[in-house]
Amino acid sequence: MKKVMAVNAGSSSLKFQLLLMPEETVIVEGIVERIGFEDAGFTIKYQGQKEKKVLPVADHGEAVKIVLDTLISKGIVKSLEEISGVGHRVLHCGDRYADSVIIDDEVIDVIDSVSDLGPLHNPANLIGIKAFMKALPGVIEVAVFDTSFHLTMPEEAYMYAVPYSWYEKYGVRRYGFHGTSHRYVSHEAARFLGKPIEDLRIITVHLGNGCSLAAVKNGKVVDTSMGLTPLEGLPMGTRSGSIDPAIIGFIADKEGLTAQEVINKLNYESGYLGISGISSDARDLRKAVEEENHHLANLAIQIQNKRIVDYIASYYVYMGGADAIVFTAGIGERSPETREEVCERLKEALGVEIDKQKNIETWGIEGEISTPNSKIKVLVIPTNEELLIARDVVRLAKTQGK
Amino acid sequence: MKKVMAVNAGSSSLKFQLLLMPEETVIVEGIVERIGFEDAGFTIKYQGQKEKKVLPVADHGEAVKIVLDTLISKGIVKSLEEISGVGHRVLHCGDRYADSVIIDDEVIDVIDSVSDLGPLHNPANLIGIKAFMKALPGVIEVAVFDTSFHLTMPEEAYMYAVPYSWYEKYGVRRYGFHGTSHRYVSHEAARFLGKPIEDLRIITVHLGNGCSLAAVKNGKVVDTSMGLTPLEGLPMGTRSGSIDPAIIGFIADKEGLTAQEVINKLNYESGYLGISGISSDARDLRKAVEEENHHLANLAIQIQNKRIVDYIASYYVYMGGADAIVFTAGIGERSPETREEVCERLKEALGVEIDKQKNIETWGIEGEISTPNSKIKVLVIPTNEELLIARDVVRLAKTQGK
Repeated sequence: MKKVMAVNAGSSSLKFQLLLMPEETVIVEGIVERIGFEDAGFTIKYQGQKEKKVLPVADHGEAVKIVLDTLISKGIVKSLEEISGVGHRVLHCGDRYADSVIIDDEVIDVIDSVSDLGPLHNPANLIGIKAFMKALPGVIEVAVFDTSFHLTMPEEAYMYAVPYSWYEKYGVRRYGFHGTSHRYVSHEAARFLGKPIEDLRIITVHLGNGCSLAAVKNGKVVDTSMGLTPLEGLPMGTRSGSIDPAIIGFIADKEGLTAQEVINKLNYESGYLGISGISSDARDLRKAVEEENHHLANLAIQIQNKRIVDYIASYYVYMGGADAIVFTAGIGERSPETREEVCERLKEALGVEIDKQKNIETWGIEGEISTPNSKIKVLVIPTNEELLIARDVVRLAKTQGK
Repeated sequence: MKKVMAVNAGSSSLKFQLLLMPEETVIVEGIVERIGFEDAGFTIKYQGQKEKKVLPVADHGEAVKIVLDTLISKGIVKSLEEISGVGHRVLHCGDRYADSVIIDDEVIDVIDSVSDLGPLHNPANLIGIKAFMKALPGVIEVAVFDTSFHLTMPEEAYMYAVPYSWYEKYGVRRYGFHGTSHRYVSHEAARFLGKPIEDLRIITVHLGNGCSLAAVKNGKVVDTSMGLTPLEGLPMGTRSGSIDPAIIGFIADKEGLTAQEVINKLNYESGYLGISGISSDARDLRKAVEEENHHLANLAIQIQNKRIVDYIASYYVYMGGADAIVFTAGIGERSPETREEVCERLKEALGVEIDKQKNIETWGIEGEISTPNSKIKVLVIPTNEELLIARDVVRLAKTQGK
């Protein structure tokens, strides 16, 4: 096993990283955006240089071809046979796979069969898988699911108190997402702390464009904040998170909308953006608070902070305590303000204490930001889903003697 | 002030209690049910005797007349002039009244104007108010709102991360319910503990047909689990409580239902009933678990227990700790099993410890069920909304020199 490709295919994009394994170094990374348009974009980062060009890209198959051709033309690989495996981030496998799997016809059928649970992502993921299979026949391909890590939740944590037939007929239950991120940072946290993950109770706080938390007890998820879909849980950039479900009927009546139209507003016009009216980006909100003392921007941030703390509190009790809280993803890695505000809210009741200077210095890098006196350690661990995908490819290839 | 009537008017029922004040003793209580039917029922409990008769009752006006006539005919009062005040439980006042109010035309307008927030209750409450005003002209009438006690919540606790215009245009926010019960038991808890409520952080756990929690810090609610409507929060007898909002769009599509039809299923076919398929009554579920080891009945109970604990945990942290957890209402007062299971889940992380024998003995009565070592006191306080309504009538009458 030498060079492994980690792929994240969206409905109109294809992100990739080529990693050298087991060294775990990134050889090249890039993204094809606006697939299907005449003015699609192809960005590649190689040897410290970033290049972007605009070109027509008809479909995912063509995007894959462009990427692979570029690897050759730039001399990044001499032949495509140097790529010994491809790992794909896939949103949903229902409750089928508790671990990543080598892709075969059955896996493709499963991904397809639960597309109603991830209508925006699963079909795109499949297109990406099929395009690479065609371009690199015979190379091992692995599916790494966003939901797998959460499959260890107990029934009382994943079942909703709705008609049981909804679970039997349609698979309505809590699945949770960002599983690759929660898995990566919880394991990295254990390594950082120098203890086996089996001995730790870790609360992972993934705050990016999407936001979710997980309670990882002895290496296993026992609860997470996202649900059937990535709408549940914390308020996010444009997502409401959990609300009174009756609001949907109320707004549908008031505004003459269907249920799905209201849900769209909860997915795309809520969260930071909905409250503040300014932006879905935390940095814009912070700026508005700093420069104009913008009340609603601050409210949006504080609502999210409060809800983060609500979840941390419930996971703390559910696990019988916590050894570490781990911040990750865009906001988690690069907003010392959010980390300080959240930890301040945990101080009185749970004895969490952070070192303000360390917190400011830990920007986009790994580090411990709690004081030695803090009753729970607070860590920042940059997430790296691509690396975990590559590791899974290597691990599963070994089971096939590759 | 001598005899005060406490009234709870539903869409087809009228519950009442006549109390002697300030002695706070119940003189008589009763209920008219199935108002509007030929076979309406009138039940009255007086001097330890319970009487029920079936008779036609056309509307709430006639129900009030039957009640008042019976008070005279049984010699409970010699004349209606002995009734010196009437207090009405009213569901919703929006964010208008932080306290109970003497009813005048403006109050009636407010109750009417927020009827869309409580479509099943507010209109019925108004019918009850008008019927008593007509039957007892000149007598002071007081509205005691289910939402008032929660109006002290900070903005970050009552605002949803949805489009801000929904708040401005339609009043979409968390209101919370069972306010009279949370107010009554939190004040009674302070009395029981011999401390001013201003010095206490109390978590009130109202578990009846409807279930909600409140965080009462220094006498003021800072968070509660119900929201815009009484659907949010904990799973209940037939209500789902909070779920992934996207489930509503998902089920609407799958079953060809409108948003409101799905919400109806979440209100009337979910919770205990939806999961277990057996019953909406906790006692039936406990029986099924005991007698047949019924898996889904147990699951329904455990999902609720988990969620109760999630809220207790978040309120514990939000208030910077807690002095007391107070159980009340049907299940809270009379299910030692639920109390023990909930407290067991709080033991490891929060040091809550209950005396199992005391817990079993405290059945429908006031008492402390925690051990002296418990880090948070655990109390059972039977709720008494009628008494609080009568107290409010007396208190507000005094402001008018009555």
